[in-house]
Amino acid sequence: MKGPLLRLLLPRRASPRPLLVSGSLWGRAQTAAISHAYSTQAGSTRRPTGRYPIPNQKDLPYDIVELMEEVEMKSGFLPNVFSVMSHRPAEFRAFFAYYNAIMNKERGRLSKADKELIVVATSVVNRCPYCVIAHGALHRIYSKKPALADQVVVNWKLADLSDREQAMLEFALAVSHSDNITEEHFQKLEAQGFDREDAWDIGMIASFFAMSNRIAHFTDLRPNEEFYTMGRIPRDKEKAETP
Amino acid sequence: MKGPLLRLLLPRRASPRPLLVSGSLWGRAQTAAISHAYSTQAGSTRRPTGRYPIPNQKDLPYDIVELMEEVEMKSGFLPNVFSVMSHRPAEFRAFFAYYNAIMNKERGRLSKADKELIVVATSVVNRCPYCVIAHGALHRIYSKKPALADQVVVNWKLADLSDREQAMLEFALAVSHSDNITEEHFQKLEAQGFDREDAWDIGMIASFFAMSNRIAHFTDLRPNEEFYTMGRIPRDKEKAETP
Amino acid sequence: MKGPLLRLLLPRRASPRPLLVSGSLWGRAQTAAISHAYSTQAGSTRRPTGRYPIPNQKDLPYDIVELMEEVEMKSGFLPNVFSVMSHRPAEFRAFFAYYNAIMNKERGRLSKADKELIVVATSVVNRCPYCVIAHGALHRIYSKKPALADQVVVNWKLADLSDREQAMLEFALAVSHSDNITEEHFQKLEAQGFDREDAWDIGMIASFFAMSNRIAHFTDLRPNEEFYTMGRIPRDKEKAETP
Amino acid sequence: MKGPLLRLLLPRRASPRPLLVSGSLWGRAQTAAISHAYSTQAGSTRRPTGRYPIPNQKDLPYDIVELMEEVEMKSGFLPNVFSVMSHRPAEFRAFFAYYNAIMNKERGRLSKADKELIVVATSVVNRCPYCVIAHGALHRIYSKKPALADQVVVNWKLADLSDREQAMLEFALAVSHSDNITEEHFQKLEAQGFDREDAWDIGMIASFFAMSNRIAHFTDLRPNEEFYTMGRIPRDKEKAETP
Amino acid sequence: MKGPLLRLLLPRRASPRPLLVSGSLWGRAQTAAISHAYSTQAGSTRRPTGRYPIPNQKDLPYDIVELMEEVEMKSGFLPNVFSVMSHRPAEFRAFFAYYNAIMNKERGRLSKADKELIVVATSVVNRCPYCVIAHGALHRIYSKKPALADQVVVNWKLADLSDREQAMLEFALAVSHSDNITEEHFQKLEAQGFDREDAWDIGMIASFFAMSNRIAHFTDLRPNEEFYTMGRIPRDKEKAETP
Amino acid sequence: MKGPLLRLLLPRRASPRPLLVSGSLWGRAQTAAISHAYSTQAGSTRRPTGRYPIPNQKDLPYDIVELMEEVEMKSGFLPNVFSVMSHRPAEFRAFFAYYNAIMNKERGRLSKADKELIVVATSVVNRCPYCVIAHGALHRIYSKKPALADQVVVNWKLADLSDREQAMLEFALAVSHSDNITEEHFQKLEAQGFDREDAWDIGMIASFFAMSNRIAHFTDLRPNEEFYTMGRIPRDKEKAETP
Repeated sequence: MKGPLLRLLLPRRASPRPLLVSGSLWGRAQTAAISHAYSTQAGSTRRPTGRYPIPNQKDLPYDIVELMEEVEMKSGFLPNVFSVMSHRPAEFRAFFAYYNAIMNKERGRLSKADKELIVVATSVVNRCPYCVIAHGALHRIYSKKPALADQVVVNWKLADLSDREQAMLEFALAVSHSDNITEEHFQKLEAQGFDREDAWDIGMIASFFAMSNRIAHFTDLRPNEEFYTMGRIPRDKEKAETP
Repeated sequence: MKGPLLRLLLPRRASPRPLLVSGSLWGRAQTAAISHAYSTQAGSTRRPTGRYPIPNQKDLPYDIVELMEEVEMKSGFLPNVFSVMSHRPAEFRAFFAYYNAIMNKERGRLSKADKELIVVATSVVNRCPYCVIAHGALHRIYSKKPALADQVVVNWKLADLSDREQAMLEFALAVSHSDNITEEHFQKLEAQGFDREDAWDIGMIASFFAMSNRIAHFTDLRPNEEFYTMGRIPRDKEKAETP
Repeated sequence: MKGPLLRLLLPRRASPRPLLVSGSLWGRAQTAAISHAYSTQAGSTRRPTGRYPIPNQKDLPYDIVELMEEVEMKSGFLPNVFSVMSHRPAEFRAFFAYYNAIMNKERGRLSKADKELIVVATSVVNRCPYCVIAHGALHRIYSKKPALADQVVVNWKLADLSDREQAMLEFALAVSHSDNITEEHFQKLEAQGFDREDAWDIGMIASFFAMSNRIAHFTDLRPNEEFYTMGRIPRDKEKAETP
Repeated sequence: MKGPLLRLLLPRRASPRPLLVSGSLWGRAQTAAISHAYSTQAGSTRRPTGRYPIPNQKDLPYDIVELMEEVEMKSGFLPNVFSVMSHRPAEFRAFFAYYNAIMNKERGRLSKADKELIVVATSVVNRCPYCVIAHGALHRIYSKKPALADQVVVNWKLADLSDREQAMLEFALAVSHSDNITEEHFQKLEAQGFDREDAWDIGMIASFFAMSNRIAHFTDLRPNEEFYTMGRIPRDKEKAETP
Repeated sequence: MKGPLLRLLLPRRASPRPLLVSGSLWGRAQTAAISHAYSTQAGSTRRPTGRYPIPNQKDLPYDIVELMEEVEMKSGFLPNVFSVMSHRPAEFRAFFAYYNAIMNKERGRLSKADKELIVVATSVVNRCPYCVIAHGALHRIYSKKPALADQVVVNWKLADLSDREQAMLEFALAVSHSDNITEEHFQKLEAQGFDREDAWDIGMIASFFAMSNRIAHFTDLRPNEEFYTMGRIPRDKEKAETP
Repeated sequence: MKGPLLRLLLPRRASPRPLLVSGSLWGRAQTAAISHAYSTQAGSTRRPTGRYPIPNQKDLPYDIVELMEEVEMKSGFLPNVFSVMSHRPAEFRAFFAYYNAIMNKERGRLSKADKELIVVATSVVNRCPYCVIAHGALHRIYSKKPALADQVVVNWKLADLSDREQAMLEFALAVSHSDNITEEHFQKLEAQGFDREDAWDIGMIASFFAMSNRIAHFTDLRPNEEFYTMGRIPRDKEKAETP
């Protein structure tokens, strides 16, 4: 049965299907996840991952605990952003509702890999360790390209990007730099097949992570160790490792 | 009776009182508001205020319409950010839930005027017309200081600010600039009586408007005309004008 | 009937006094100072408006006092720049002679509103409170557009400017930024109907205020309170107020 | 025996002509123009030195011609700034009156070499060829230090400056950069023996050349060839060369 | 027997031992190297790795070929910088002689990992993909810290660095930014145990890579694929993988 | 008859000594050092010219002393860069071997004056006194244009440069700024007759001096006094001076 937050994140006319079964919030992102059951004992071993105290699960509202458990079960670990944001339940809910609305949006021309690439490229501008490392890992997994995010981190203009990806990042970075966005910006996107709704999606992701990067700075949010190596091992080896 | 969005915005343990009666989301902000009743006919005269089409009210989910009507009734006009964001209902809900959680938060040492001052100062960095003009107006109303926001827009360091306000804006701008936030930043706040929870509030407002400023840029969100003069007329004259 | 400031700011024809016939606003600035003593009670009520001591009128040369009295009589108040500059009479004369030569020049395609817009846009770059607030006020009065200066202060590229105004400000800002000025700059002006003499006028105003902005910084020149609201009240109300 | 320029640049006492007794270098600039005709053969040989037409002497007001002749006679050549500014007589007068008031001011702790050093250091920021080359030459002559201006042009912080000169340039550059000038700026000057009046002098020179640099850019004012080598030859050789 | 370049690279009192056996130029850097014999046939399969043609080995001077063979044999692949620089043999020799003199210097307090960290941190400033990716790999191998270089790439100030490493990078970055280096810079190093000779080493590495980064940009030097994953797999796994 | 420095700076043919026949300016830098002792009285008179101790000649390897003597004999003085770099013989050799390979390269379209102009223009960016002053002097001598380097120091875009020189400096500065170098950069060079090999030469000089400028900063390398006036005296006078 779905908890209140997940219900919140669903399309307005309530979906009867369990949200995370069909993929979504952090669904399927981590193919190497270990599938053993989540245990609440684990909560006590969680070390502080930022500058603010992280509540014990027993002190958190049920909907937040439920979401965190589901994410941890599927990913094999709980990304630190969940812990850090749980310090403020109301903001936690709004943050992840927003995140879900843009990153797990089903329609539009942006693939999951596209979205992660936008996050990586714009988070580099703001020098946000959590966002670059975590979403670089997610990009490797979605794109199956283990080197591209590393290239974008150093110099996106010299990365092995398609013209379409270049245009997408150029728009995202203009938004991230808070440039005045003009018709010319939209036309460059259109030349690569992105319509105005796609532009909104790109711009909104860039805008949302302009916020996230700054939250990460003032909360001192640091990436989980797991992210550094995620998606770097080719799939064949990976399979062999998890018999 | 409250609509679904408003219920969403309430503290988790459901408040039995009508939210907007007690002031809140945009409540009381506009003392000069004209109190004539809202009419749905007015919806048809609404001109596009940004780059994206604005849905007719009849095509919008009920909770969004309800919120917009309530805001318009209380303010005398509907701030353009509501129209522009209604293009994407799910994002509308997340955006205003987030906005509400931080701008209408009851606890902490930040007054409403403080919060608006943070929005003005950080939105200047990103050169966002909507955010600077609209929140400058809100600052004038909450602070009763008709010149301070104008001063902050030009040069916050030369504005007639208290040491406390200077420290608050210095922290907010460090977050807005995506600086690395260090213990020294927090200590400067503490020297002015702000604790870590206040720092979170300041940082979160700066972060949220880092997002909002950029959304305003790519949607071409422009301020309503009403904002330019709001709060400039001294209260005595104001009274005299509305017998 | 017009108030004293408005009369001052109107085209020059109407003045019955010899000073303004032979020159203009601050026409006598170039004349040699006569050092006979001058005294007035009014001198004692003037509070310091900057970092340097402001001489009593009785200690000032007659030509400077005469100009200040005329300005104060016509405007209803003495703009602080007159007080602050009077600390150095020789520089006072040169400053206002220069100001007069460029701001009150009769010929050329720049309207008084155009000139004030240049001052506002370039003074924003240097974050000069006096220049932005005072000349924003003058722009509102000359242009009858109460919102435009506020828009230019936040983001001139997004302000409701004509193509002609955009070109004018683009040139002025290039000069203000001390860019190398090329033939291309002049051609863009020509495309909007400005000839080389107009370009000189635009460039000279931008240059003069590059100086003024910096003088304002080191003298700590602050705007008079009157400037914040000047020109914001629509004309109909204004008439009603001064029966 | 000294050549004409050197004589001009020396302390003022020696001049036998009435103009320089009553004022100084460009003393008559403030007087009202008399429009009687003037003609000289010399006018025809003057080549255009900037972007704007340079009037023939016969078309210029007498006071301007008189000043130009005097400068040319004493210097051995007419610095191009006089020619370029003569395009606008009223502005010519105000410009040189201002220049005279600050650069030829007798009182205060700034030597002539100090003033030229300020001009050089601040004009480098604005990359103004005329101002750097011409005033670098004047600095060499006044200071008898043939290398110092060249050093300041490349990197003032590494130049062979006294602590006093370092403090002076630090203040001048803060003004030139349009920084907010604080009490701390003044205190650093005071630690090197400069009082508030000296600070005004430094700040005003930096401000005036913020204007001049920009005028030079839009008029395309270029240095006379003579400036490049002026003051580089040691005095002993100089004597030997002009027997 | 050693070739001419290697002889050049040796300590001045001629070493009798084969240079690369004892480790050095690129020695031991790649622990995962495959040790099968190098074959000259492989030369033909080498695809262009930059903007300039890469000579065939048969057209290269013997000393250069010899060095390249030795590096390739030990590393399992030839880093692209060798191929690209071989376009200009004289510059190749000078470049690697310089590289060797500073990166393989035996004395001083900088470990090999320290040196690679300097290269990574300064190359990020110049956004050089080859230098960041290749030397990030070398850092992982020398330091046994698989995440640190990735952290430094995003934001060195937030990376898990010791105070000593922080001071080292702060100095290196000041040199990289071409800041004026003052006694204060040296004192900060000394506070962490680095003497003036160490400062030279740090500064020289930062300077050399200021050059290398720019060479990489104009030659379009890109990292070999091998570098992206080098040193990411923990040693235990590594052993297990290559039975 | 020419003085020693001028002879050195002239085309190489005239030299009667074996060193300069077989190589060029600093031709022996690459040869292996012979370590027998060297002593000269001259060593004691050399004052420290930077931050690091400069070895006595008797403590330096013979090849380095030999090169320094030859340079000093021909130039009339020893440029400080030789003294400062001699602190580290191995780096001295690599540095001058590199310098020689690019600055004394016989082939290609870059004249000696072109190369010095590149050094001046790029060293200005890094505000390196030694490199700007010393290579400005060399440019004056090679180009016979006594004012051009001074112009480039202030503002290369306003200097009296040919289109070819403008294109050359534009490329060099792009490399110096560590810009991404694209095909468009090469095409602009080609439009002025520079092929890809010339582009390499330009880019390599810009890269090498990106290194040299930084070395100069951390070693506090300052220009010899001789450089300030070198090449400023017209040739006719020069002849007359050395009968």
